Amino acid sequence: MRGNIFGKAFKISTYGESHGPAIGVTIDGCPSNLEISESLIQEEMDRRRPGQSSIVTQRQEGDTIEILSGVFEGKSTGTPISILIRNKDQKSKDYSHIKDSFRPSHADYTYNKKYGNRDYRGGGRSSARETAARVAAGAIARQYLALSNIEINAFVSQVGHIVLEKIPTTLNRALIEQNIIRCPDPETASQMIDYIKLIKKEGDTIGGVITCVIKGCSVGLGEPVFDKLHADLGKAMLSINAVKGFEIGSGFSAVSMKGSEHNDVFVKKDNLVTTKTNFSGGVQGGISNGMDIVFRVAFKPVATIMRDQQSIDKNGDSTVVKGKGRHDPCVVPRAVPIVEAMSSLVIIDHLLRQRTTLA
Amino acid sequence: MRGNIFGKAFKISTYGESHGPAIGVTIDGCPSNLEISESLIQEEMDRRRPGQSSIVTQRQEGDTIEILSGVFEGKSTGTPISILIRNKDQKSKDYSHIKDSFRPSHADYTYNKKYGNRDYRGGGRSSARETAARVAAGAIARQYLALSNIEINAFVSQVGHIVLEKIPTTLNRALIEQNIIRCPDPETASQMIDYIKLIKKEGDTIGGVITCVIKGCSVGLGEPVFDKLHADLGKAMLSINAVKGFEIGSGFSAVSMKGSEHNDVFVKKDNLVTTKTNFSGGVQGGISNGMDIVFRVAFKPVATIMRDQQSIDKNGDSTVVKGKGRHDPCVVPRAVPIVEAMSSLVIIDHLLRQRTTLA
Amino acid sequence: MRGNIFGKAFKISTYGESHGPAIGVTIDGCPSNLEISESLIQEEMDRRRPGQSSIVTQRQEGDTIEILSGVFEGKSTGTPISILIRNKDQKSKDYSHIKDSFRPSHADYTYNKKYGNRDYRGGGRSSARETAARVAAGAIARQYLALSNIEINAFVSQVGHIVLEKIPTTLNRALIEQNIIRCPDPETASQMIDYIKLIKKEGDTIGGVITCVIKGCSVGLGEPVFDKLHADLGKAMLSINAVKGFEIGSGFSAVSMKGSEHNDVFVKKDNLVTTKTNFSGGVQGGISNGMDIVFRVAFKPVATIMRDQQSIDKNGDSTVVKGKGRHDPCVVPRAVPIVEAMSSLVIIDHLLRQRTTLA
Amino acid sequence: MRGNIFGKAFKISTYGESHGPAIGVTIDGCPSNLEISESLIQEEMDRRRPGQSSIVTQRQEGDTIEILSGVFEGKSTGTPISILIRNKDQKSKDYSHIKDSFRPSHADYTYNKKYGNRDYRGGGRSSARETAARVAAGAIARQYLALSNIEINAFVSQVGHIVLEKIPTTLNRALIEQNIIRCPDPETASQMIDYIKLIKKEGDTIGGVITCVIKGCSVGLGEPVFDKLHADLGKAMLSINAVKGFEIGSGFSAVSMKGSEHNDVFVKKDNLVTTKTNFSGGVQGGISNGMDIVFRVAFKPVATIMRDQQSIDKNGDSTVVKGKGRHDPCVVPRAVPIVEAMSSLVIIDHLLRQRTTLA
Repeated sequence: MRGNIFGKAFKISTYGESHGPAIGVTIDGCPSNLEISESLIQEEMDRRRPGQSSIVTQRQEGDTIEILSGVFEGKSTGTPISILIRNKDQKSKDYSHIKDSFRPSHADYTYNKKYGNRDYRGGGRSSARETAARVAAGAIARQYLALSNIEINAFVSQVGHIVLEKIPTTLNRALIEQNIIRCPDPETASQMIDYIKLIKKEGDTIGGVITCVIKGCSVGLGEPVFDKLHADLGKAMLSINAVKGFEIGSGFSAVSMKGSEHNDVFVKKDNLVTTKTNFSGGVQGGISNGMDIVFRVAFKPVATIMRDQQSIDKNGDSTVVKGKGRHDPCVVPRAVPIVEAMSSLVIIDHLLRQRTTLA
Repeated sequence: MRGNIFGKAFKISTYGESHGPAIGVTIDGCPSNLEISESLIQEEMDRRRPGQSSIVTQRQEGDTIEILSGVFEGKSTGTPISILIRNKDQKSKDYSHIKDSFRPSHADYTYNKKYGNRDYRGGGRSSARETAARVAAGAIARQYLALSNIEINAFVSQVGHIVLEKIPTTLNRALIEQNIIRCPDPETASQMIDYIKLIKKEGDTIGGVITCVIKGCSVGLGEPVFDKLHADLGKAMLSINAVKGFEIGSGFSAVSMKGSEHNDVFVKKDNLVTTKTNFSGGVQGGISNGMDIVFRVAFKPVATIMRDQQSIDKNGDSTVVKGKGRHDPCVVPRAVPIVEAMSSLVIIDHLLRQRTTLA
Repeated sequence: MRGNIFGKAFKISTYGESHGPAIGVTIDGCPSNLEISESLIQEEMDRRRPGQSSIVTQRQEGDTIEILSGVFEGKSTGTPISILIRNKDQKSKDYSHIKDSFRPSHADYTYNKKYGNRDYRGGGRSSARETAARVAAGAIARQYLALSNIEINAFVSQVGHIVLEKIPTTLNRALIEQNIIRCPDPETASQMIDYIKLIKKEGDTIGGVITCVIKGCSVGLGEPVFDKLHADLGKAMLSINAVKGFEIGSGFSAVSMKGSEHNDVFVKKDNLVTTKTNFSGGVQGGISNGMDIVFRVAFKPVATIMRDQQSIDKNGDSTVVKGKGRHDPCVVPRAVPIVEAMSSLVIIDHLLRQRTTLA
Repeated sequence: MRGNIFGKAFKISTYGESHGPAIGVTIDGCPSNLEISESLIQEEMDRRRPGQSSIVTQRQEGDTIEILSGVFEGKSTGTPISILIRNKDQKSKDYSHIKDSFRPSHADYTYNKKYGNRDYRGGGRSSARETAARVAAGAIARQYLALSNIEINAFVSQVGHIVLEKIPTTLNRALIEQNIIRCPDPETASQMIDYIKLIKKEGDTIGGVITCVIKGCSVGLGEPVFDKLHADLGKAMLSINAVKGFEIGSGFSAVSMKGSEHNDVFVKKDNLVTTKTNFSGGVQGGISNGMDIVFRVAFKPVATIMRDQQSIDKNGDSTVVKGKGRHDPCVVPRAVPIVEAMSSLVIIDHLLRQRTTLA
C-alpha cells in the first residue's frame, strides 16, 4: 500500500532518509545457495556513491555495506538478506533554510501535504540517496543473473543537446566506465563532460538520457496482461528520481511509422529464431522474445540550482530559496548504476515468476 | 505472480480470450454505498467497442455488460463486483492460418514459447479485446472519481506525422467525441481521419499518440518510493497493447532543458498554491501537487497488415503470413477510452491508499 | 485489501451473493498445459451442492459450472481460468423478514455496520453459498496435485458428542463417500446421521469436527516465518463459514505433554527419512517434513434454527426472528469438500512458490 | 512469495538469524504524525527478551533497539520505520554438534531439505529469536491502537495440566506482569511456576495455552471472505514458533453445542448493541461485532530437551543428539508479548484497511 516494497517473487523492502542514521534494504525472495560476493556489491555501490568525480556532488559517503542476515559462509540461505548502509557525511545544517519553505520542483511541498510531517533535511526520503539501497539489492540480483548469462549495461546516450548517435554493437562495463560520464563513445563523452562543467559553472543543471541494453534473456519473461515485461521495466525506471519518460524499442518514434516498416520479421539464424529488425525492443506482447531488450530513460535537470528562485513558504507567503548543500549538476552519470540495478531487479523477478508457469 | 490482477486497494482481476465464450472482470475494493449506473458503464463500453466507425475494425460486438455481483438496489455493497461480457461475433476460422505460424510483431511466438500452449484464435488473451474488461472496471472507478470532481480526458494528439499542436485549455467529453478520431481540434481531426483512410486503403497501419489530462486531483496521491503516481500511471499505460512509450509533463523534452528553465516556480493564486509552469506534469516526488496531471502515450502501428509478410512457423521453417480478420488501421481512436479507464483505475487506487496515510 | 483474493502463486478471486445472478471464481496462476477435466470439477461441485441428501438443506442448485476462459482444447493455457456458476433456486422472499433485523450469530449486523449497505437475501455474500466458487477452484488445483501423487482426504470425525475414535490407516474417496455424513467408519456414521435427524426434528442444529489428511507432500513446502504451511492452512480453514478452531498434529493436546513425549524422533525406513510419531502433523518449523499432514477443524452449530429467537432490528429495538428458508442442521457433511478444496489451494500455492526457492 | 512479509496495509518485513549480526524489521504503512515512544517499544522488548527470570532461557540479550528511519523529532513521517536489534550473546559453539545432524521436532531437517543450505547456529532463522522483530513492530502498532482505546492483553491460561479456570473480568498489564509466568491469578501462577521448575530439573519441557483478549475494537474490522478477522488472527498465531492450535470464542467446545445454546442473542445495553453471551468471540461473519475478541493459542513443549535423543544425521545415519545451549523449559511466559504483538499487527492492519471501505 505505501510503496516501499518492490517486486513479487524477488521482493525488496527499502528504508531510510538522506540525513537519518542509515538507509537499507531487505530482500525476501533471493534463491538459496547463491554465492554472494560482498566486493561485487560494493563495486556497484562505488559506481553510484557521491564524490566519485568532479562532475557529481561532493558529498562524501563511502556507502560501505554491512550484510545483516541471509548469507552464511558466503552463500545465500534462502532467508531474507538485509543490507545496512550508514549515513556518514550528513550536513544537516545546510538544510535549515528549507525547513519552512518549499523548493521549486522538489518534493518538499507534496511530502508536506501528503504526510503532514516531514524530515526536511536533505529532502529526507525523497532524496536520491534512497537509491543506494536499490543498488545494493540490484547487485545481488545481478550476481544471480550472471549465472544465466544475462548481462545488463546502461550508459549515457544524451546530455542536453549532445547525443550519442550510434549505440555500439559491443557493450561492456569497461567501455562504459572508461570515462566519468559513462558514455561508451570517448569523443561524445568528452563533449558531454565539458558541457556539464560549463553548466555547473553557471550554477545550473541539465537533463539527459540513459539507454539500457539487456542481453541474454531467454524467451518467455513477462506476465500479461498487466505485468508485461516492459510495463514493469517502465514502472521501475519511472520510480527513479528525476525520470520523466520511458520508451522501449522504437518508442515515440513508432508513432509516425507504418506497420509495414515497423514489424519485426522473424528469421532463423544459426538455428535460432531472431528478428531482422528490433523495433519491438526485445519484448512482444509483454514477453521477452530473445532479442536484446533496449529502452531509453529521460531524466530532467536536477531541481537544485545554485541560484535564487522565487517560491512560497509553509504559510503560502512568497519567499526566495537558493540551492545550498552539495548537488549534482547532471544526474545521469550516477544514475547509470541505478538504471542497471532496477533492471536487474525486474529481470530476476520475472525469471523467478516464470518458474511457476509450466505444469 | 501471473499478471492478471491490477491495483492494490481497488484491485481488478480480468480474464478472457478474444474467441472464447466471454471476457470479464472482478473488482475487489470498490467502496460500498456507491451509486452504480449501468448505462454509464455501457457508454464507456460503446466508446471502445469495435464496429463503431469507418476507421476501426468491423468486428461487431455489442459488448453488453452483465453485472453478476456486488451491486444491490443500484448501490455497491462493498463485496466484489463482477462484470461479464459475452463474445458474440467471433470468426475463428479467420485464424486457422496462424495456428502453426507466427505473425511478425504479434505475441504468437512469445506466448507459444512461454506457455507451451496457446489459444491462437484472434490472438487469444493477447488480443486487445481483453481491454474491454479494463474499460468496464474503469467506468465504475470513474463514477467514484466524479464524486470528488476528478475529471479524466484523453484524446488523440498525433497520428503518423499529423500533430495536434496545441492542447485546448478547456477539455471535455463532448469536444473529444465530436469526431471519430477523438481529437479535440476539428481541423486536425479531419486530417488525421483522411490519413488513416489512406493508410487503410494501402493495407497498412499507422501509429499515434494519446494525451491524457487529469483535472481535480487533490495534493497527496502517490506512494514513494516505488509506487510514485507517475510510475503507476506509466505501468498502466505500458500494459495497454501496442504502447511503446510514456512521458509525463516535459517528458523527453526535459532532457535538453536546464534546471533554471524547467523548475516549476510556486505561486499563490486565489489563495491556492499553484505553479507558474507545469513541466512536472502535476506530479512532484511521485506525489500529485494539485496541478493538472498531463501525460502522453505512444502507440506503435497495428501489427496486422493486409499484406504478405515473411515469417516462420512452429518448426522454424520459412512461411508467409497475411493479415486476415478484421483489424484497426490505427489503434488510437479506440484506445482513448482505454487510456481513460486505466487512468481512472490508477487514480482511484491511490485515492483509497491515501486514506490510510494519516494517523 | 478487501479480502476476496486468496493465494500468492495460485491466486483465486471469487465473487457472488447467495441470491444474486451468479457466483464464480477466476484463477490467476494455474500452470499452463494442464489437462483440465470439467467432469472432475463437476464431481466436486456435486459433493458440496445443496439438496444432495436428507440431512442437508433442501435448496435445489445444480451448481453447473461454465468455464469462460483459460482452457483451450482441454488444456490450461496459462491465462486466467474463470468459472461461472449461475444461481437458480433463490427464494428471496424467504428473507424479507430479515431485511431490517439481525439474526443472532449471523453476519447481518456486522455486514450492515461495516458496509452501510447489504444484500440481505440469503445472507448475501456471507452465505456459505460463496464456498461453491472455492470448490470449483480447488477442483482444478486437485487435478494438478494428482500429477504429483498428492492426495487430500477430509472426513467427519465428530458430530456433537459422537466421536470417531480411530482414524483409519487407509483413507480414500470411496470410503468417505459411502455414507451421507462422510465419516469413514460406517457404525459411527450411522450414529451421527441419526443424531442429526433428531436435532433437525427439534428445529435445532449441531456442531462437528472435520479431520483432513494430506498424503504425498514432498519435504519443503511452507514459507517461514509468516507463511508457515500450517499457518496458511489454518487461515484457509478459519476463512470457511462456521469454523471456530484449527489444530495441527497434536494440537491442543500438546499443551499437557512433555517435550520428551512430544518430540517426533527421526528414523530411516526403506531408505526414507520418517518420524516414529507424528505429533508435528507433518509440518516442522512451518515446512512439510514428508509425513502425512493431519489437521482438525472445529465447526460451530449452524446459526439458523427453526425457533423463535430474541434479537434487535436496525433501530436497535427488540424483535423476534425465526429461521425460515432452507438450511443445514449440521454443516460438516457438506463442508468436507470445502475443507479439501481449501487444502488443495494452499498446497498448490506452496508447491508453486517452492519452485522459486533454489538458485 | 517467500513469507517474511506480513500485513497488507501495515506491512512488516523482518530479517535475521539467531546467531547472525542482527535481526530487525521494517514497517511500511505506519500512519504519519504518530508520536512514537522508544521507551514503550523497549518495554515490550524487555518482556520478551531472554534472561528475564529463572524460568526462561539464560541467554543474555539486552535487545536494545535502534530506530534507523521513519521517525523525525519523535513522530512518524509516513516513510518506512526500520528497527535494528543487534545480537550480542551468541554462543555459536554450542551448536557445532548439530551442524550435521537433525534435532527431533526442530526445523533443522526441513530447512536443510527446503533450502539446501542453512545457518545451523541456534536454529538460524527458525529460532524464536526472530520474534523479537515482531515485538518491536507490534509495539509501534500498539501505540497507534491506544489512540483508539483498543487494548490487547494476553496471559498464560494453562501450563501442562494446570489450568486457569476463570478469566478475570478486569484485565490489565499490571495484573499480568505481577508474576514471572504472566498468569493473572496469583495462586494458579505459583502452581505453574513450581511445575515448570520441576520440569526444568528433569531436563524436560512442557506445553501451555495463552489466552488473548482484545477490548475496544469498533464494529467492522475484518475482510470477508478470506481475510476474516479471526482467520488473520489465526494465521498470525500459527506463525509463532511452537503453536499447534488456535480457537476463537467457543472454539473446539462449539462442536458439541446446539445452535439454540450457541447463538449469541443481541441485546441493547446502555444504548449499545451487545450480545448476551460471547461464544462468537467478538467476530461474526469474519467481522468484529464490538464485543471482546477472545481467542486461545496452544503451544507445544519446547523441542530442545536436556536429554539424549535418537536421531539421524545428514547422511541419514543414526545418531544421538542432546540439547545444549540455553533454552526455555516452557515457552508461554515469553510468548505472551509475542501473542500481543501479532494481535496488534493484525488489528492495526484491519483498522487501516477498513478506512478504504466506505464511499
